[in-house]
Amino acid sequence: MTLNQITLIGVGLIGGSFVLDLKRQKRIQTIIGIDLDLTNLECAIERRVIDIAHTQITPESVQHSDLILIATPVATLPKICATLAPMLPENIIISDVGSTKQSALAAFKQHLPKHYPQCVAAHPIAGSDRSGALVAQFGLYQNKKLILCPHEQQDTRSLKTIAELWQTVGANVHQMTAQEHDQIFAAVSHFPHLLAFAYVHQMLDDPNGARYLDFAGSGFRDFTRIAASSPDMWRDIALVNRDSLLQLIAAQKQQLDYLERSLKNDNAQALWDYFQAAKQVREEWGETH
Amino acid sequence: MTLNQITLIGVGLIGGSFVLDLKRQKRIQTIIGIDLDLTNLECAIERRVIDIAHTQITPESVQHSDLILIATPVATLPKICATLAPMLPENIIISDVGSTKQSALAAFKQHLPKHYPQCVAAHPIAGSDRSGALVAQFGLYQNKKLILCPHEQQDTRSLKTIAELWQTVGANVHQMTAQEHDQIFAAVSHFPHLLAFAYVHQMLDDPNGARYLDFAGSGFRDFTRIAASSPDMWRDIALVNRDSLLQLIAAQKQQLDYLERSLKNDNAQALWDYFQAAKQVREEWGETH
Repeated sequence: MTLNQITLIGVGLIGGSFVLDLKRQKRIQTIIGIDLDLTNLECAIERRVIDIAHTQITPESVQHSDLILIATPVATLPKICATLAPMLPENIIISDVGSTKQSALAAFKQHLPKHYPQCVAAHPIAGSDRSGALVAQFGLYQNKKLILCPHEQQDTRSLKTIAELWQTVGANVHQMTAQEHDQIFAAVSHFPHLLAFAYVHQMLDDPNGARYLDFAGSGFRDFTRIAASSPDMWRDIALVNRDSLLQLIAAQKQQLDYLERSLKNDNAQALWDYFQAAKQVREEWGETH
Repeated sequence: MTLNQITLIGVGLIGGSFVLDLKRQKRIQTIIGIDLDLTNLECAIERRVIDIAHTQITPESVQHSDLILIATPVATLPKICATLAPMLPENIIISDVGSTKQSALAAFKQHLPKHYPQCVAAHPIAGSDRSGALVAQFGLYQNKKLILCPHEQQDTRSLKTIAELWQTVGANVHQMTAQEHDQIFAAVSHFPHLLAFAYVHQMLDDPNGARYLDFAGSGFRDFTRIAASSPDMWRDIALVNRDSLLQLIAAQKQQLDYLERSLKNDNAQALWDYFQAAKQVREEWGETH
């Protein structure tokens, strides 16, 4: 699997690391990078993450490419697709890397109806608190999971191309529906972020919160690490994955109700069983991940 | 500040690391270690954490000591104090290292009324997922916080002795009431543990939970690390710090209500403001801790 040219929209950690590895393996000739941030583009050129830089999407920047990879925050996808629509060559493949996949397919279908079969919704499970072309790195996807969410009109060749490119950079490719994807990542990623934000916000709302935080230690540190994540990114994800998150919030309130009852009843056995069951699940997960 | 002999009840990470540093600095002659676990005691002798080992509390094991340090799970304190009561020499100092301090003072007052002025409630803010004499280490308390909770009948000399011993092993000593202590540590330690257990338990209760966990990544890893903690320890802490925890659970439900409303109303600005405020608090904390 080799391609002539890729247009990368959004030159950051996720997209930048992907093309770095493809170039190192000589699977790709030319990378055109499009980004709103000129400093970021200059850094990407200097570090040879991309070969040609553009600050906006133009016919010239896409018309000779085999693949457009959109690696921008999830909420920007509809507008980017609408901009791309009138300038796409017939056989081009379009793919993304966002954390919500039903919204990605909806954007592809609405704004790129003619190219919809060639649109491949993908999500690499690798990230970092850091962002920008400067942090793009070789080997980021080695042994990481990559989820593909093929849709009802999916062109097999396009799907296969995207799967092979991600395998080339070391990812283990999984397939599932976009609905299943969003449910899974709501549960194990989006919801923990919401809970971490909610807990830190609780401290902020407490009149004694500042005093409390003075004495916070390593447990607090790890539990709240994800509360330092980007508000833009998580606002967007929260809204597009709203329904799954509302269900998870309701379920969490039931867990808190149970803990509340057990505490009020001084039910030592119920608390022990509850903690022990959670500990076991977490330890088993830790042994295999 | 030097002592002749310490009796350490519970020879694990917390107590073992404390006496290791005191011995290295020649502040103490002899350590008598008492532990229910014979293998643990043998390991403690072999590693020279203690000099003499006992599997139970006897007059012989305490009567010539200057200090008894109780470093066992918080729920065991009342029974240990009751056992100690008839065999304590007049001037001995008694101290503990538990995570809840109102319960410690209550146990001292009820079971050791004659020695209550010499009972010093202390809590070193250092811990680990690991336990046992094998993990006792030099320097564990260097630059860590140590909280003392003096009570209304506190003997000044006893308080000063304990403060100086902890300073000797490198800790920064803070004083506050037991009530304030318990409120603070409910907020920044006990409650995050409950939330981590509750979140993992929610995954366990979900019919698709096992499938979800297969795709969990680094955010999940850190957020749930404390859910692998000891159910015995956390059952005990939860029950003795029940009232603070019930208040925190109620406040957390309000946070979840707010997120629920913001999501239902598609209120992007409210979500952004909420996440941004939490991110800022967390980042400021990270810069100073």
